[in-house]
Amino acid sequence: MTVDNRDTIVAPATAAGGAIAVIRISGSETFAVCDRVFRGKRPLAAAEGYTVHYGRIMDGERVVDDVLATVFRAPHSYTGEDSVEVSCHGSSYVVSEILRLLLKSGARMAEPGEFTIRAYMNGKMDLSQAEAVADLIASSSRAAHTMASTQMRGGYSARLDALRDELVHLTALLELELDFSEEDVEFADRSHLRSIMEQIRSEIDRLKQSFSLGNAIKQGVPVAIVGAPNVGKSTLLNRLLNEDRAMVSDIAGTTRDVIEEQANIGGVVFRFLDTAGIRQTDDRLEQMGIERTMKSIGKAEIVIRMTEAGTRNPELENITLRDDQKLIDVINKCDLYPQSVLPEGVIAISAKRGEGIDELCRVLRAQIDTDALYQGDVVVSHSRHVEALSAAGEALEDALRGLDDGTPEDLLAEDIRQVIRYIGTITGRGEILSQEVLNHIFGKFCIGK
Amino acid sequence: MTVDNRDTIVAPATAAGGAIAVIRISGSETFAVCDRVFRGKRPLAAAEGYTVHYGRIMDGERVVDDVLATVFRAPHSYTGEDSVEVSCHGSSYVVSEILRLLLKSGARMAEPGEFTIRAYMNGKMDLSQAEAVADLIASSSRAAHTMASTQMRGGYSARLDALRDELVHLTALLELELDFSEEDVEFADRSHLRSIMEQIRSEIDRLKQSFSLGNAIKQGVPVAIVGAPNVGKSTLLNRLLNEDRAMVSDIAGTTRDVIEEQANIGGVVFRFLDTAGIRQTDDRLEQMGIERTMKSIGKAEIVIRMTEAGTRNPELENITLRDDQKLIDVINKCDLYPQSVLPEGVIAISAKRGEGIDELCRVLRAQIDTDALYQGDVVVSHSRHVEALSAAGEALEDALRGLDDGTPEDLLAEDIRQVIRYIGTITGRGEILSQEVLNHIFGKFCIGK
Repeated sequence: MTVDNRDTIVAPATAAGGAIAVIRISGSETFAVCDRVFRGKRPLAAAEGYTVHYGRIMDGERVVDDVLATVFRAPHSYTGEDSVEVSCHGSSYVVSEILRLLLKSGARMAEPGEFTIRAYMNGKMDLSQAEAVADLIASSSRAAHTMASTQMRGGYSARLDALRDELVHLTALLELELDFSEEDVEFADRSHLRSIMEQIRSEIDRLKQSFSLGNAIKQGVPVAIVGAPNVGKSTLLNRLLNEDRAMVSDIAGTTRDVIEEQANIGGVVFRFLDTAGIRQTDDRLEQMGIERTMKSIGKAEIVIRMTEAGTRNPELENITLRDDQKLIDVINKCDLYPQSVLPEGVIAISAKRGEGIDELCRVLRAQIDTDALYQGDVVVSHSRHVEALSAAGEALEDALRGLDDGTPEDLLAEDIRQVIRYIGTITGRGEILSQEVLNHIFGKFCIGK
Repeated sequence: MTVDNRDTIVAPATAAGGAIAVIRISGSETFAVCDRVFRGKRPLAAAEGYTVHYGRIMDGERVVDDVLATVFRAPHSYTGEDSVEVSCHGSSYVVSEILRLLLKSGARMAEPGEFTIRAYMNGKMDLSQAEAVADLIASSSRAAHTMASTQMRGGYSARLDALRDELVHLTALLELELDFSEEDVEFADRSHLRSIMEQIRSEIDRLKQSFSLGNAIKQGVPVAIVGAPNVGKSTLLNRLLNEDRAMVSDIAGTTRDVIEEQANIGGVVFRFLDTAGIRQTDDRLEQMGIERTMKSIGKAEIVIRMTEAGTRNPELENITLRDDQKLIDVINKCDLYPQSVLPEGVIAISAKRGEGIDELCRVLRAQIDTDALYQGDVVVSHSRHVEALSAAGEALEDALRGLDDGTPEDLLAEDIRQVIRYIGTITGRGEILSQEVLNHIFGKFCIGK
């Protein structure tokens, strides 16, 4: 996607199927383009920003629709350019006719994310904020929303800018030494320098580590429910999903595509992986199913190990997990056995009757610590950012090694400038990014944003 | 649905899944409700109508979203009440959170069509216009859009009002006679009276008859493609549907659910009915299929009879159609035979190679005469209206018979008042309609309209 920023662009900003639809136009010719098809009391070109105007979209003398046009004047708009939002009746025919007329009047269809690209180009937001806009639109849980929201409002950018400022300060000191190198002055005390660099390294490490949480919140926390065949995995899953559906439908009118096997529990989306029953078997087909289950376990962040009260399953007892994986032991069909025979430290449920499900949800939810997130802490949720942070971390290691080896100031300063550059690619501030990077970021946007 | 008009109501007005979403609030407490959760430069209560305000939706001290709020002041709004439209990020979480907060602040969820009910109650539009709003939103072709548009903008209401005025004039004359009955004056010349009543009857008939076109345009024109097995019916159908898809995707960004077996040809939606191949057979199952096909033919407005070039099919030649059904003869696989052997008056196509499809589309389209519609003529598209017109027509017949029989003025006037009443139920003007009728009309609306 190589786009011309001088074009006036248009796109539908709402999904098809509602009572109303909104069409967005942005660019220097916005008012001229709109006034060719909009007939109101006055032309939109004469209207002030942040005002709404009733009128009709005309195809020659044919009325296409009665609409409301909202006027935004540069730089006080989402894109920073002159913009209009046309609110029309939510008919697929009306929307396509208005688009057709605006295209005929000199606008062109916007590429996905192009409105946000312009916002970035016009300094309305940095790259990580732009990425957060797409995350915010996609968010369907409180945790995902909070994460995107913090990033969009610049919390993340501020943290990175602080790091950047410290690093710039370091290079300035080193360069000053360089200017006075004949006099053998040491402006930057080496142990102080090392202490600052180590602080930055631990901050970069913390951000990198937060990606595991950030990714889980964004994509949904992967959970594998494993157990013997007929232990009640599907019944439990249905119950967990149904709890969610009930919650969603409490707020009427928000139709949403129910994605199979995801449940919003306490503001976090959990994604349940498909698993087959595990038991010892000679059946080749069943063995393949179990192999698939083992793969699912490998991908899971949380494993719910389910056994039936009063039974044992040696295959299950032997499954091994990585250090970063969490195990929840659940005993099902607890209603069939007296409470006393249940081992300690496990959750007793009856998937069929719904007993113990609240407790299981509580424990499941407790595995994901969102406290820091809700208190405004920055969490990394893009692999692009992790890659940049890793590269920055490596360059910082080089600089630290250089400090130990008595590397000259100019080389040390160059290493640190490298760290600054990598961190800069995250926000796009102070760095010129390739078209490829921009395409990668904005290509994932929906049209109209 | 029995609703309290004093409540302040809220609903999402856009479908889930777009870049932005719009939430509508309407009612006397609109600004108070909104200002409990909206934090901008100034409260919305202090804002003028037709202005837009940037601000944040707050849940206590937590920011839920950055939004634009558009203020409408009574009576200059869709409902005629104080209203606000909140434009937020199109995330399902954000929309449900904002709805939750507005509900907590004193609004209640709107019933389907409740915004439009209020517009009707507040005299912003009559009933037939309100019905047209729903039709307009559902319209997906130029013809359906034009029909709804004419009705929404009051073209239909004006026609009915003109009828009504003439009828009121008639009753006034008759009542005047009644007042002077002792003097035996005849203000309303009987032959003149009859002439006006017959004009009205023919106008009512014309409107009733237009329903066949109106319904076909609204629901899609039902078309049956019949022919022997393997004559190429499915290939033709796919070709007709594909032509449509190609057209739709020309205007990018307007994703729409493709409804199986509907094609927009020249601004009219054609609906292709499922049919099985017709041939003489002893197979019981195949006979059942053919019976089903015959039923489809009965429901079709247009029948495309398809034979293979160089073959004959006596079963097909004998199908009988009603007077109001139209037949198009098509010969397929024309590429396999020299042009000269094709009979006249039929359309030669190759469904496989796409030859003759344009001509078939042209002929298909020509069966539906939309010229009068595009010139602003009124077309009835609701069975409710046809029922009212039929009842009005019957009452008018009674009045005409009464005229022949020398019925006294007061009974004649009562018959005509009955005609007025039936016509009045269409627009709801001058008539008090039952809750049942209102429920029937508005229950079909989408939420948020």
